Amino acid sequence: MSKRIAVVGYGNIGRCAIEAIAASPDLELAGIVRRRVGAAVPRELADVPVTTDIATLGPVDAAVLCVPSRSVQEHAITYLKLGINTVDCFDMHTSILDLRRALLPVAQEHGVVAVVAAGWDPGSDSVVRALLEACAPRGLTYTNFGPGLSMGHTVAAKAVAGVADALSLTVPLGTGIHRRVVYVELEPDAEVEEVSGAIKADPYFAHDETRVVPVPSIEAIRDAGHGVSLTRKGVSGTTDNQLFEFGMTINNPALTAQIMVSCARASLKQRPGVYTMPEIPVLDLLPGDTEELLARLV
Amino acid sequence: MSKRIAVVGYGNIGRCAIEAIAASPDLELAGIVRRRVGAAVPRELADVPVTTDIATLGPVDAAVLCVPSRSVQEHAITYLKLGINTVDCFDMHTSILDLRRALLPVAQEHGVVAVVAAGWDPGSDSVVRALLEACAPRGLTYTNFGPGLSMGHTVAAKAVAGVADALSLTVPLGTGIHRRVVYVELEPDAEVEEVSGAIKADPYFAHDETRVVPVPSIEAIRDAGHGVSLTRKGVSGTTDNQLFEFGMTINNPALTAQIMVSCARASLKQRPGVYTMPEIPVLDLLPGDTEELLARLV
Repeated sequence: MSKRIAVVGYGNIGRCAIEAIAASPDLELAGIVRRRVGAAVPRELADVPVTTDIATLGPVDAAVLCVPSRSVQEHAITYLKLGINTVDCFDMHTSILDLRRALLPVAQEHGVVAVVAAGWDPGSDSVVRALLEACAPRGLTYTNFGPGLSMGHTVAAKAVAGVADALSLTVPLGTGIHRRVVYVELEPDAEVEEVSGAIKADPYFAHDETRVVPVPSIEAIRDAGHGVSLTRKGVSGTTDNQLFEFGMTINNPALTAQIMVSCARASLKQRPGVYTMPEIPVLDLLPGDTEELLARLV
Repeated sequence: MSKRIAVVGYGNIGRCAIEAIAASPDLELAGIVRRRVGAAVPRELADVPVTTDIATLGPVDAAVLCVPSRSVQEHAITYLKLGINTVDCFDMHTSILDLRRALLPVAQEHGVVAVVAAGWDPGSDSVVRALLEACAPRGLTYTNFGPGLSMGHTVAAKAVAGVADALSLTVPLGTGIHRRVVYVELEPDAEVEEVSGAIKADPYFAHDETRVVPVPSIEAIRDAGHGVSLTRKGVSGTTDNQLFEFGMTINNPALTAQIMVSCARASLKQRPGVYTMPEIPVLDLLPGDTEELLARLV
C-alpha cells in the first residue's frame, strides 16, 4: 500500500520532488498544492491533481514543503494541525532550533511528525558531521561549499539598484572560508563600480571576500550544480590525526528534493515529534525490508 | 552521573577502548574483563579493576566486547542475560543478520540493548552507505579498503606452513576490487615459491589478486593505519550523475574502539532490542544536550 505524499509549492525543488516520488516504489503523489491555481496549469501537470486546498486531495500521509524558508513555519503548522506529517528544507542554520521548538507542541498535540532542515546542508551533511564527531570526538570539522549557486546571496544581489539579473557563486577557499563571485547583468544606465560597492556593502556579502563580475547574460551561465567538501581531522580516544573527508558534486534541487522525499518516508516510521536528520535512524530513509537492506548495506 | 562501561578483552581494541572511555565526559571505566587474571597485570592497569567475572565490578551499564568476531555471540548472550547492554565490532559481513537474530530474543527478554557490527566497516561506513542510497536511490556504491592491514587475511597467512610471521595488506584498485599484498617472514628452511603457492590457494586469497613478498622483519613494517574510499554515483529522482565520495585515513584499532564506545553511549538511549549502526539515530552517539549538539552540527 503506497504512502500518499503531497508536494507543496511548484518551484525547482517541487518539480524535482514530484520526480523523486514517482521514482519511489513505496510512495505515490497525492497532488500538488499551490498558492493559486489559474488557467495556466503547466502541461506536465495535466494528469496531476493541483489544488490550493490539500483537503481536496483525499488522504495524505505527508506533505513535502517546497516553499521558501521564511514561510516554512506557517505551512508546517497548517498541515500538522490537519494530521499530516511535514518535511521541509529550512536552511537558515541559526533559526533551526526556533523552528523545531515552534513545531514541537503542534506535532505532539496532533500526533504527527515534522522533519525539519532536511536538505543537504542542513540535512545529510549534518548527519555526516555528527557521525564524524562520534568517530573522532576532539578535533575540527570544516564544511566547504561549492562551487555552486547560493540562492540567498543571489536574491540579495538581485535586489541591488542597477542589477537586472544576478547569480552569486559560492567558491570554497578551504577551512570553511568562501569567496562569493557575483555575476551581474547590469541595467542599461548602471555603473559597475557603484553596483559592486552596493553589493559588497550588503550584510549578505560584507563578511566574505566578494568579487562582482559583469556578464552580458545570466541565463547563459546558470547551472544547478553544487558541491561540498567536508573534512574532519581529530582524535579517536587518545590517537591523533584521524582524517575523514566527505565530498559531493550534485544537482542542487534534485538532491534537496530527493532527501526531502526520503525524509517523508522516514517521518512515517517515527513517533510524534519534531526531528532533524541526525535524530532519525538513517535506515528509516530507505524503502524495503529491514533485513534485506541490512544484508546489502551493513 | 557517569555511565559505567566495562571493557571485555585487552587486545589492541580493548586498550584503545579504555582510552576512549577516559576521554568521554559522560562515561567511566567500570573495569576490564579478561579470560585469565594472573600475576602479570600490565603496569598501566595498576589502578583499574581487572577481573574474570563482571559481577565483581559493581553496576555496569554497558559492556564493550573487544573480542574476536567468532566469540562475540557467546559473550554478548552472557552479558545481555545479566541485564548489561553490549556493543561488538563483529566484522563477518555475511553473518551479521544471524548474530542480530540470535541476540534479539535475549535482548528483548532481559530488557537490554545489543549494538552489533559497530566498527568502521561494518559500522560507520554502513551509515554512510545507507545515507548515500537515500540521497541517490538508484546507482552504484563502491567501497574501496586500504591501504591497510587486514586482520583476517593476516591470520590466514600466518597459518601457512613455512611462515614465521606475516602481514596481509589490502590495497584498493578501485570499483571495490582489491589487491592483497602478503608480507612474509619465512622459517629458515622454507621456500618462497612453496609458501606463495600455499597462500594463493587459501580460500581467503583465492578470489583476489595476491602478491607474496618475503621480508626480513614483519615487526619493521607493522602500521595500524588503514583507510577507506567509498564512492556512490547515482540518480536523485530523475537526475543522473550525482557523485558522492567518503574517505578516511585512520588508526584502525583507535577508530574501531572509539566507535564502539560511542555506540555504548547510544545503546543507553535505545529501546530494548538489537541494532546495527544505521538503525540508531546518529545524534545518540554523542554526549551532551540535544539542542546544543544540534546548534553546532545541523
